[in-house]
Amino acid sequence: MKTPAESSFAVPWPADEFLSRLRAVGGHGYHDKHPFHALMNAGKLNREQLQGWVANRFYYQSRIPIKDAAILSNCPERDLRRVWIQRIRDHDGAADDIGGIEKWLLLGEAVGLLRQEMLSHARLLPGVRYAVDAYVAFCRTQPWIIAMSSSLTELFAPALMSKRIAAFEKHYPWVKKEGLGYFRARLTQAPRDSDFALRLVLERCRSRDLQEQAVAALKFKCELLWAMLDAMHLAYVLTPQTK
Amino acid sequence: MKTPAESSFAVPWPADEFLSRLRAVGGHGYHDKHPFHALMNAGKLNREQLQGWVANRFYYQSRIPIKDAAILSNCPERDLRRVWIQRIRDHDGAADDIGGIEKWLLLGEAVGLLRQEMLSHARLLPGVRYAVDAYVAFCRTQPWIIAMSSSLTELFAPALMSKRIAAFEKHYPWVKKEGLGYFRARLTQAPRDSDFALRLVLERCRSRDLQEQAVAALKFKCELLWAMLDAMHLAYVLTPQTK
Repeated sequence: MKTPAESSFAVPWPADEFLSRLRAVGGHGYHDKHPFHALMNAGKLNREQLQGWVANRFYYQSRIPIKDAAILSNCPERDLRRVWIQRIRDHDGAADDIGGIEKWLLLGEAVGLLRQEMLSHARLLPGVRYAVDAYVAFCRTQPWIIAMSSSLTELFAPALMSKRIAAFEKHYPWVKKEGLGYFRARLTQAPRDSDFALRLVLERCRSRDLQEQAVAALKFKCELLWAMLDAMHLAYVLTPQTK
Repeated sequence: MKTPAESSFAVPWPADEFLSRLRAVGGHGYHDKHPFHALMNAGKLNREQLQGWVANRFYYQSRIPIKDAAILSNCPERDLRRVWIQRIRDHDGAADDIGGIEKWLLLGEAVGLLRQEMLSHARLLPGVRYAVDAYVAFCRTQPWIIAMSSSLTELFAPALMSKRIAAFEKHYPWVKKEGLGYFRARLTQAPRDSDFALRLVLERCRSRDLQEQAVAALKFKCELLWAMLDAMHLAYVLTPQTK
């Protein structure tokens, strides 16, 4: 086990090793491997459980522009802000785009949730709230390049989204196709975003210390996505209660 | 003198009184009345003094998108974020707009500053830095509606900009006209922004407490713009030093 002092004098990883370490984090810990996610993709969730997932995940969705604005407010480089700001637009929407938050609300309606129920976060589980709030706090307080590193879960998102769309169409035909617009949008948005973030992280995290912090940030992000599903698995699969 | 407890039970001001109290703050304390500003508009600044003003004010300009992103990151309402985000674009620029920071750099070049000198904030006076940093800290930590209230100095900006443009054209003919693009852009941006912010502040600050906080936020903002000019007046007019 290295002490921090040893680590700071350690030789930086070559780019390919740094990249493979980042990819390995998702390989081990991305939430597509969570039991709740496996049940979803296998068509084993009932309507109530699927609604619970959509309603809880909405809290995460609603906080994405907030965490990206926090990153923006910590970043002193205009040229980087000019790119990063697109993420806020993608979720909040603009004149020519309803935005990701609205698309998720349409998904919610497609699985039978009321819009107001989602907006008030009435079904939000405490464990999900804490995980999401920890993410926003991380992005507010960490150096911007480390906060940006935590967004690299998007490297693993397109594969998950493709499988999810297929699973919904196959196993949950009662969910209207129009409800899947968010998943489809992320098929192109996520690779564009992760391409940029990955190039930046590889370029700016040149010391071993920063490289290790970037890997740790990505692990932190994977863990919080996992913890969100833990809370849902416990509440909706292992110990479901009638209301 | 009221205690906070008394104040919180005080009757809210009617909208017209609230508005006139907000306007009165600028009437008394907006920086167009500062001696340094009076010298500038009267054509009494020499080249060195004008350069000092442009270089120091650039630090403020460079922090505007950062403070607006901080406000965005504290605002839970998507529809408001969708409007407020335009301010960041206005300053950082986008594909179709060089943006206010670049326009200010062009102003700097027009008064004879080097771009790198501005970007490195080489001429930044400590007092200016502290005032600007206090503004960013205020916007990061105050409730978003109060931080937004501090932006209402824009109510007073168009009148100042019109006079400034005329003064530059008359008294400083050596400054190339292309350098005045920032001032011209603000003639239309500032009223659009302050219209929105004013309606919002009047609508959301309904309690007497919030109204008083909004007035205090605007006063705080006027004071920091004034303090920036104080630092410049001291350094460049009252105690100028040869380098």
